[in-house]
Amino acid sequence: MTHPTNAATSLAEIAERYQDHRRYPHGIAFMDGQYLSMAEAKISVLDWGFLHSDVTYDTVHVWNDRFFRLDRHLDRFFQGVQRLRMNLPYNRQEITEILTNCVRLSGHKAAYVDMICTRGSSPTFSRDPREAENRFIAFALPFGSVANKHQLERGLHVAISEKVRIPPNSVDPSIKNCHWLDLVTGLFDAYDYGAETALLLDTMGNISEGPGFNVFTVKQRHLKTPASTVLPGITRQTVFDLCDELRLSATAGDIGRDELKSADEVFITSTAGGIMPVTRIDSSIIGDGRVGVVTRRLMDLYWKKHDDPEWSTPVSV
Amino acid sequence: MTHPTNAATSLAEIAERYQDHRRYPHGIAFMDGQYLSMAEAKISVLDWGFLHSDVTYDTVHVWNDRFFRLDRHLDRFFQGVQRLRMNLPYNRQEITEILTNCVRLSGHKAAYVDMICTRGSSPTFSRDPREAENRFIAFALPFGSVANKHQLERGLHVAISEKVRIPPNSVDPSIKNCHWLDLVTGLFDAYDYGAETALLLDTMGNISEGPGFNVFTVKQRHLKTPASTVLPGITRQTVFDLCDELRLSATAGDIGRDELKSADEVFITSTAGGIMPVTRIDSSIIGDGRVGVVTRRLMDLYWKKHDDPEWSTPVSV
Repeated sequence: MTHPTNAATSLAEIAERYQDHRRYPHGIAFMDGQYLSMAEAKISVLDWGFLHSDVTYDTVHVWNDRFFRLDRHLDRFFQGVQRLRMNLPYNRQEITEILTNCVRLSGHKAAYVDMICTRGSSPTFSRDPREAENRFIAFALPFGSVANKHQLERGLHVAISEKVRIPPNSVDPSIKNCHWLDLVTGLFDAYDYGAETALLLDTMGNISEGPGFNVFTVKQRHLKTPASTVLPGITRQTVFDLCDELRLSATAGDIGRDELKSADEVFITSTAGGIMPVTRIDSSIIGDGRVGVVTRRLMDLYWKKHDDPEWSTPVSV
Repeated sequence: MTHPTNAATSLAEIAERYQDHRRYPHGIAFMDGQYLSMAEAKISVLDWGFLHSDVTYDTVHVWNDRFFRLDRHLDRFFQGVQRLRMNLPYNRQEITEILTNCVRLSGHKAAYVDMICTRGSSPTFSRDPREAENRFIAFALPFGSVANKHQLERGLHVAISEKVRIPPNSVDPSIKNCHWLDLVTGLFDAYDYGAETALLLDTMGNISEGPGFNVFTVKQRHLKTPASTVLPGITRQTVFDLCDELRLSATAGDIGRDELKSADEVFITSTAGGIMPVTRIDSSIIGDGRVGVVTRRLMDLYWKKHDDPEWSTPVSV
């Protein structure tokens, strides 16, 4: 890195092209009709998506060369775009093709695939969002998980943060958004505590969600997950669907801290990792401290569905 | 724009370099030791500042070739960076030099100058924010204002949105942040109503702030501005300082909707425009519908201070 200035009186020079020496993960992005390496996938610092987090997105995953529940992710993405009053330059079929191309070009058989729509920018740096040109971005990266292999085997250690998840009357959680400062603060709180990830509260002091995941309790074979103030996750919905198949009852409703800690089993759900067991919350051990039987059954069935044509579609057309 | 795919069976090509045909305002940015045109100032789509709005910033303005209250902006910026547990690669003196260089290279005598610190990115796309390399970005653009010339003369028309500004127990408003989806929604509500900008509420139903500005009422020569749930703006603080000089009383406290609408005068404050009169809120005319005498006195004194060495510093060293 060069020194920010030469001398107080002589002017610094303007570089012709920005040189970025950071390293990026292996993957392929799509922007403005172009497929690019991740090192080239950059947006203007003036984009409303960056300066005002005025953006919505969705993440679908690919497993064994198959998209898992892509239709659901596209439904939610298009809904979010419409509700933020943005316009996509591509239709559903075109976006499917773009995502497919990103994955194929990346070579990843297991991938984390993002589709993003930002408000974009205007040539005049106008303060009126209606004057910005909306933009679509997509990328495919190696599949990632909230919980690593070890944590999937022994269960995650989660800490409850005192932070309140941004409430729905401020930002609609059903529009998947990038407003994460509360979640990031919660993560740091959790690390301070010695835990691996965090759960935030809602304004009533009940459990809400964590950074990128929903949470479920199992008590006497009944499943429960927070109803409002959370993203209606696709993996969360998948758990309801799997419960139907396994004849397990599942409801959405308020979960207090004590109720969470005294559950027989706890797990979290995310496109990034699927169904992931939690065996410790703050200093409380959940159940007998090992991954529960209901959690394990759901995990097994969840991964089984990845080959099922009713739940997944091949990447290669 | 090229078609997203060639044919369903043949693979699309990977472009070597991203070609961006958007137009950007005239200005100069600083990134990684390099001074760049705004068209080159781009960050990775994997930056936490974009994907998680995990970023803080500050905006200072330059008027007649002088920074206005740069020290205050630097104080707040460094505080925010520290509270988000980020590390800046530059000290206060170096950042002052960088901002100075951006303004001088841009040629703007009146400028809008941003300093930004994002969590950055990690080569592995890790979900742990501690593994990201924090980054500093700055840029200088032409000076902009919330209110245009016409609006400054006749006063702004503001609508009160039903949206609740993201509360402090979720995101600390004293750390200047980019969580604006509530404000953008409020803006669209205001446009629908036929107004020019918006004010949001706090969780108690009192007035909070608008997109990039604080608000003040004047009633019987006493000034009042919302106390909490708002960014402690530098221009807001400047109004308190000017009131001291003008022997006007000013306090921070709750302001209800009715109180706002029945004020003698209302104005908003922002680095982007200074002190700006409001003459209509929803369907209510404020005072006699013209810019009030207290507002005008404050506006005059505010701009006068821009030449005062105690309030401003020259760009050219």
